[in-house]
Amino acid sequence: MAIGLFDSGIGGLTVLQELKHKLPHEQFIYFGDTARVPYGNKSQETIIRYAIENTIALIEKEIKLLVIACNTASAFALPKLRQLFNLPIVGVIEPGAHQAARLSRHQRIAVLGTRGTIQSGAYQQAIQGLLPDATILPIECPLFVHFVEEKLLHHPATELMVQEYLRPIKEQQIDTVLLGCTHYPLLSHLIQQELGPDVKLVNSATCCADQVYDLLQQHELASSSLSGRDYYYTSDAPQQFKRLGETLFPFQFESVELLLPHRLYH
Amino acid sequence: MAIGLFDSGIGGLTVLQELKHKLPHEQFIYFGDTARVPYGNKSQETIIRYAIENTIALIEKEIKLLVIACNTASAFALPKLRQLFNLPIVGVIEPGAHQAARLSRHQRIAVLGTRGTIQSGAYQQAIQGLLPDATILPIECPLFVHFVEEKLLHHPATELMVQEYLRPIKEQQIDTVLLGCTHYPLLSHLIQQELGPDVKLVNSATCCADQVYDLLQQHELASSSLSGRDYYYTSDAPQQFKRLGETLFPFQFESVELLLPHRLYH
Repeated sequence: MAIGLFDSGIGGLTVLQELKHKLPHEQFIYFGDTARVPYGNKSQETIIRYAIENTIALIEKEIKLLVIACNTASAFALPKLRQLFNLPIVGVIEPGAHQAARLSRHQRIAVLGTRGTIQSGAYQQAIQGLLPDATILPIECPLFVHFVEEKLLHHPATELMVQEYLRPIKEQQIDTVLLGCTHYPLLSHLIQQELGPDVKLVNSATCCADQVYDLLQQHELASSSLSGRDYYYTSDAPQQFKRLGETLFPFQFESVELLLPHRLYH
Repeated sequence: MAIGLFDSGIGGLTVLQELKHKLPHEQFIYFGDTARVPYGNKSQETIIRYAIENTIALIEKEIKLLVIACNTASAFALPKLRQLFNLPIVGVIEPGAHQAARLSRHQRIAVLGTRGTIQSGAYQQAIQGLLPDATILPIECPLFVHFVEEKLLHHPATELMVQEYLRPIKEQQIDTVLLGCTHYPLLSHLIQQELGPDVKLVNSATCCADQVYDLLQQHELASSSLSGRDYYYTSDAPQQFKRLGETLFPFQFESVELLLPHRLYH
């Protein structure tokens, strides 16, 4: 059986990239909810509804483990999904918080995220639980997603917003920065350049792949031989997803199809 | 009875503002589909589905006329809505195209819009129908919506993108620029500054209000005395809509409530 992932759009492909690297024998089914993208500026109630609908759609495709490859959905909906569904579920918040807590030398950690992720307080609480005395600087970076979706990875306007959003980090002697949105690793070159080489960047996607690896071992769910090809589904414009995905990521998107999750309420 | 409007979010309030100015006796019911915002980068099929769902939701609130206060939805869905529903329906494309054709001295017209609006070709066809020999320059400006939604109306990053998107206009001696997205009037100060005072900007919202006025007369639907207060509905986070709306527009949002349109397909 495959590992299922969902995100609001293409951002979660940074998580898939790490998973494919760490778990080359596994098969993956990815759902990008492009009809309702983005998630980052929507409410907890709405994101929980979308997350439940997406999870049911993936379970119907037969998956053995679910990865919430979206920080906003992980922040808002992980407890609810674990309560409802009978399969192992991994988000990106806990693994990222663990890694940041492990790497930070002076317990001065910044978290970059969408409005939803930051306002949920999920990263802040997870880090505080590990390092009660840590200084945590949460920063909303709502425009980063759009610069990535427009492929403006090296544009002066993107650089300007990086400088502006990150200004408090330089003022507060932060030593570790958590990239709390799956799109942000695609801007890590600009972020690292702005902050200098001494500040460590934590990519939640990498830490998430480690946790998936452990869970597969623990539940004896790992595939021992090479599985079939991966499947991609989107709720809007599969061909546009394929084109953008192939521009930004080094893997093939053989099968991208339309999938509309069932709606929960009417 | 009221006049109904829908948009993907707050952009359509620029249309409402013109309508309230032109038709002070009318009552309005506005729906912002904030759970699925934005529309500009989604497919025709998906936008038609959303437009039908939103129209049914507004008809259930009892409206006498519908305004599609969104360029992408007007471009993709107006013919379908007119075919399906038994009430007068006004979009923003035709009125804007008429006004641009009327104002342009040398028949050199640029159209700014979302990816969806530009790729639909709706403005280009409408202008060509009026001025068969016109030079039409369509320009996708996908980031403008996000700068407006983030209230970055005077930010250097916004200025940079204005310069970049508008560069072809200066090179091609355009005399008239159609603001083909309901968010763009909020950036007209930057656009006018970049293009200089000789280039005319056409705000579809103003022309749309004129067409609504004419239609009300024609169908004898105009209110003769002051109607009740306006109602606002959103599919996500009504309070956030209220806050952002009151920051950007000079009118009160007394009643903003959650409304989830029925879903068309399953």
